[in-house]
Amino acid sequence: MARGPDSRKRPPSRIVIQYPAPAVDLGRYPVKRCVGDVVEVSADIFRDGHELLRAVVKYRPADGQSRRWRECELHRIDADQDGVRWAGSFEVDVAGRWQYTFEAWTDRFGTWRDELRRKLEAGRADQPDDASAAQSGEPGSRAGGWLAGELSEGVELLRGAEQRATVQRDRVLIQRALAILEDGGANAAHRHAAALDEALYAAVERAQERDGATSLEPLALEVDRVRARFGSWYELFPRSWGGLRGVEAQLPRLAELGFDVVYLTPIHPIGTSNRKGRDNALIAAPDDPGSPWAIGNANGGHDAIDPGLGTIDDLRSLTRAAHKLEIDIALDFAIQCSADHPWLREHPEWFHHRPDGTLKYAENPPKRYQDIYNVNWDTQDWRNLWEALLQVVLQWVRCGVKVFRVDNPHTKPAAFWAWLIEQVHAEDRDVIFLAEAFTRRAMMRHLAKIGFTQSYTYFTWKNSRSELTEYVLELARSGEQDYLRPNFFANTPDILHEYLQRGGRPAFEARLVLAATLSPSYGIYSGFEKIENVAVRAGSEEYLHSEKYELRERTLDGVLLPMVKRLNLARREQPALQQLDNVSFLSTENEALIAYVKQTGANSVITVVNLDPHSAQEGLAVVPAQLGLPPVFSVRDLLSGERYEWRLGRNYVRLEPGVHQAHVNLVEAA
Amino acid sequence: MARGPDSRKRPPSRIVIQYPAPAVDLGRYPVKRCVGDVVEVSADIFRDGHELLRAVVKYRPADGQSRRWRECELHRIDADQDGVRWAGSFEVDVAGRWQYTFEAWTDRFGTWRDELRRKLEAGRADQPDDASAAQSGEPGSRAGGWLAGELSEGVELLRGAEQRATVQRDRVLIQRALAILEDGGANAAHRHAAALDEALYAAVERAQERDGATSLEPLALEVDRVRARFGSWYELFPRSWGGLRGVEAQLPRLAELGFDVVYLTPIHPIGTSNRKGRDNALIAAPDDPGSPWAIGNANGGHDAIDPGLGTIDDLRSLTRAAHKLEIDIALDFAIQCSADHPWLREHPEWFHHRPDGTLKYAENPPKRYQDIYNVNWDTQDWRNLWEALLQVVLQWVRCGVKVFRVDNPHTKPAAFWAWLIEQVHAEDRDVIFLAEAFTRRAMMRHLAKIGFTQSYTYFTWKNSRSELTEYVLELARSGEQDYLRPNFFANTPDILHEYLQRGGRPAFEARLVLAATLSPSYGIYSGFEKIENVAVRAGSEEYLHSEKYELRERTLDGVLLPMVKRLNLARREQPALQQLDNVSFLSTENEALIAYVKQTGANSVITVVNLDPHSAQEGLAVVPAQLGLPPVFSVRDLLSGERYEWRLGRNYVRLEPGVHQAHVNLVEAA
Repeated sequence: MARGPDSRKRPPSRIVIQYPAPAVDLGRYPVKRCVGDVVEVSADIFRDGHELLRAVVKYRPADGQSRRWRECELHRIDADQDGVRWAGSFEVDVAGRWQYTFEAWTDRFGTWRDELRRKLEAGRADQPDDASAAQSGEPGSRAGGWLAGELSEGVELLRGAEQRATVQRDRVLIQRALAILEDGGANAAHRHAAALDEALYAAVERAQERDGATSLEPLALEVDRVRARFGSWYELFPRSWGGLRGVEAQLPRLAELGFDVVYLTPIHPIGTSNRKGRDNALIAAPDDPGSPWAIGNANGGHDAIDPGLGTIDDLRSLTRAAHKLEIDIALDFAIQCSADHPWLREHPEWFHHRPDGTLKYAENPPKRYQDIYNVNWDTQDWRNLWEALLQVVLQWVRCGVKVFRVDNPHTKPAAFWAWLIEQVHAEDRDVIFLAEAFTRRAMMRHLAKIGFTQSYTYFTWKNSRSELTEYVLELARSGEQDYLRPNFFANTPDILHEYLQRGGRPAFEARLVLAATLSPSYGIYSGFEKIENVAVRAGSEEYLHSEKYELRERTLDGVLLPMVKRLNLARREQPALQQLDNVSFLSTENEALIAYVKQTGANSVITVVNLDPHSAQEGLAVVPAQLGLPPVFSVRDLLSGERYEWRLGRNYVRLEPGVHQAHVNLVEAA
Repeated sequence: MARGPDSRKRPPSRIVIQYPAPAVDLGRYPVKRCVGDVVEVSADIFRDGHELLRAVVKYRPADGQSRRWRECELHRIDADQDGVRWAGSFEVDVAGRWQYTFEAWTDRFGTWRDELRRKLEAGRADQPDDASAAQSGEPGSRAGGWLAGELSEGVELLRGAEQRATVQRDRVLIQRALAILEDGGANAAHRHAAALDEALYAAVERAQERDGATSLEPLALEVDRVRARFGSWYELFPRSWGGLRGVEAQLPRLAELGFDVVYLTPIHPIGTSNRKGRDNALIAAPDDPGSPWAIGNANGGHDAIDPGLGTIDDLRSLTRAAHKLEIDIALDFAIQCSADHPWLREHPEWFHHRPDGTLKYAENPPKRYQDIYNVNWDTQDWRNLWEALLQVVLQWVRCGVKVFRVDNPHTKPAAFWAWLIEQVHAEDRDVIFLAEAFTRRAMMRHLAKIGFTQSYTYFTWKNSRSELTEYVLELARSGEQDYLRPNFFANTPDILHEYLQRGGRPAFEARLVLAATLSPSYGIYSGFEKIENVAVRAGSEEYLHSEKYELRERTLDGVLLPMVKRLNLARREQPALQQLDNVSFLSTENEALIAYVKQTGANSVITVVNLDPHSAQEGLAVVPAQLGLPPVFSVRDLLSGERYEWRLGRNYVRLEPGVHQAHVNLVEAA
């Protein structure tokens, strides 16, 4: 695991460096961080014998101009009872792939000094030199007196340090110590004191050679812009807002509401063959617009914009306007094609054909998606297919789109995504990919490991206190936090959870607060702010009159928008709400109340949510001492503006639907 | 992680294989097993999309004649809620390094058959073919009728299988099915039934091609002879038994007592310079024999035998006699040298010299080991030093010594041990190395990972119920069981624990039973069976009149030997006592009573030990239902021969020092 120096000349390294952290699967996949993050690192570092070690973390951007390794000293941490864990930190100040590694070496002077000190403490300066040395009759033992052999070693080490010292002041200190150690007439106590001098130690360490230095195979770190971790998303169907120009007109208001990302469902021409009608009807009426996810018709495919929504120039105008407001426009990247997609004619080999010549539409029996065709990833022409898809993404990147919400990535090869994301990042490292993989954990995790910036989660289906607690701790504390960044959507065009269907406005408020305060990235799909909550039928999570299949006219005036704005503002102002793994859940003595504190530095926000949309709930939020909060402190509810006195231990909370569904309490002062 | 097929022609593999088990640090170090073990393996295996997979484990000895990969099918296990975990097993039937890997591929026929079945269940056979197919106007859809496109795919898959089938019966089945599927006149239901036929499925699967097959980088498995895991050790100072011939005379009795390994402290000439006297006195009296660990004098070094103990021929005779009794003779491998060791003259560069010319004896201030010199592992002549040490070990191996107890390996470079063990195994794979590394866990674990067969442990210092439980679970269940094999010594020449010093014979009985039943390998150092328990001084774990520094006359007649014999016999007869990780601790409702069951197949042994050497203790050993024992069952105490009725749930136990200190209850029958 650890690499030694040239083994032809020197024996293999005696130092073991193992279990570096952070690391994903022991370093097999990169760890994710954002620009400005301080990366806390640690590793087991030890060697045989009793020698002292020193160690540093070395780090650098893997490409770009400044590839020089920088380094920062590590220190042994006591938390580990074995005494083999070392820790340190460094800051990542630019986006891109970084590398980090550890280097450790034997501290020869420190070891010598430490042994000398222990011998002096054991009274050895008052004893004759070693019986063996006396017996051997070699010169040094008698000439030098007590501990003379040890001092002769020290002289050798100091001479080396003198040669290497680059600071004049250090060299002078070392020379002065050498003069005393080498002075045969000097008093033994004087020589020992000179050898143990603290300033000398520091000077020698600065000039040390890295004896037997060992380092680890470098680990990769993907550093993204901060929006990769932190952002408030609003999802909309552009056709419901007057197309791209209509969306652009909404941007100032969306910015004022505190949204960071405006995500547009697919903007491409929609197929006409087998077009789905309202509420997913198999036969569309003549004026039904079809699902935006059935991509492609005579007007073009993935590289075209539906003429009803606007033009490429309209998109450029939209992304420019958004950029000025510090908003990202996100596009949907859905690879399936309608029967009318130009690729079916131009590249029939990219699709599944049966031996009898028929084309296979998408299906997962008994489910059938008659309006779309999946590409055949096993085609012999796979290189051209991959390249065409890359060009689609790059085209939109060049139009200013820096965020892609990827539709069902788990039904496409992971190797394709790894390649695509790497290629896109080579052109523009700011591009963010959100994986919509509602699938098995193993696949969700794998997609995150191989490159997706963010991931949809199971949040919509976690509604009880225990489900939420268990799930958030899994995301924030299991190791997943190093590579999978959750984006908590409170709803999507496909997911209107029963909790929202039945709970009315209080349920929407509870879910909004949970999403916005538990995850640094969260989102709502338009209609949420208007408490739209009617399902197409009992037992379904699909919306009635789903916007996927019919034209709607949308306006930005839902009753929840004031709350959305307050939450988005709080998220921008409170650093604690911009992190995932800084959460601690509090006991509430009531299963219907969930409470948690997020802490970043001195910034602490305590959120309490009533999960019961129907009844008032009261409980006792217990603030444990280890959070480091003062015995008594003031909090201000960032939703209501109200102030409360809180304390360590139990705090009475009552939350009544229609009055307060939640508190988002900023800890203000003692 | 997973390797795909030739990526120039075909796209990278769509199958992910990860987290193989067993694996040490994700495969960085080999897993240890013994000849005859069934290796239970598992891995996460999944791919994008909905296709079905098949998978096998492949395994082979990495060297030797039979390097052909064998394989065994894996099955998905339900225990994993993601449904991505597959498991299987194989047997390792010869010692040496093995490799294993997983291979998985897409089950094209199985996927096709499964989708057809689901479509038929959804009533699709009663519907017209797909609207799209109808619209496309392609021939197959009309000509074939319902699900004709699907059947055309099936025909293609069956044709391929027909080509590949190696079993005549399978080929006939496939041809018969093809005839039906291709018969335009056949009734649709008849064709569907033929396609779904179970026997056809089995035949096609036997002839399947491994579509998109992916395999993992092979993992290493070190397979040792069974004694690497299971053995009863007796440690002795040969000089106390009349030298090597005297030890040989004791072998029949040691065999009768059930010992498998007789471990001799170092047998080499002992230094005279700075020889330690009785009770570690700095000055030896003229007739003091010195510590056997101060190796080397004018008679030779590590490759010589102290003439007082015998000759090389005596050793050969001893190992031959032992071999006939199925006993291993273990030697001590301690690398330090006395001042009189020939190497100090022949290879002064192998030792630490100070700049003033003096030699450095071993010390760890304030501790000093004036009678020994450590070799300088950083010497430029390290290759010759390593080679000389290897030749020492090989010399003894060639004399029939197949077990080495390695003294303080943690103060020598781990890379040296890895190399030495590999070299010795290349000559004789049966050699066992026991690491005496009483040091930090990280180093103990590292030595086990890089090749030591067995390890001393902290067992001597774990005396309470909670300490024992926690420690044994760490060894048996934390993952350590895959690479670190514990050897529980109840005492050593250096460790007479306070528990033994104070507890008298009951304490010795308790510790003996614990060592012999908790760990497949255990040992005692002679004197234990005679309840020798006087320390050199209060607070010390050193023996008074330590055999390390003076001559003793030993005989094999201690009061504990009958109990030792019964335990060793029980260990040989009960497979459950030969494994480590098959232990479950039982609640006893009394902290002074520890109870555990070991189960291997139908063999169950329930041990209960009174940890209190001074008082009778009573409690209730609780047998939980999940152990699979009958509601009521008989047990026979393998120590006393007494029988008891036990049951699921609580079982009253009373253990009184002087009467019974422990039960080792074999579960006999319902």
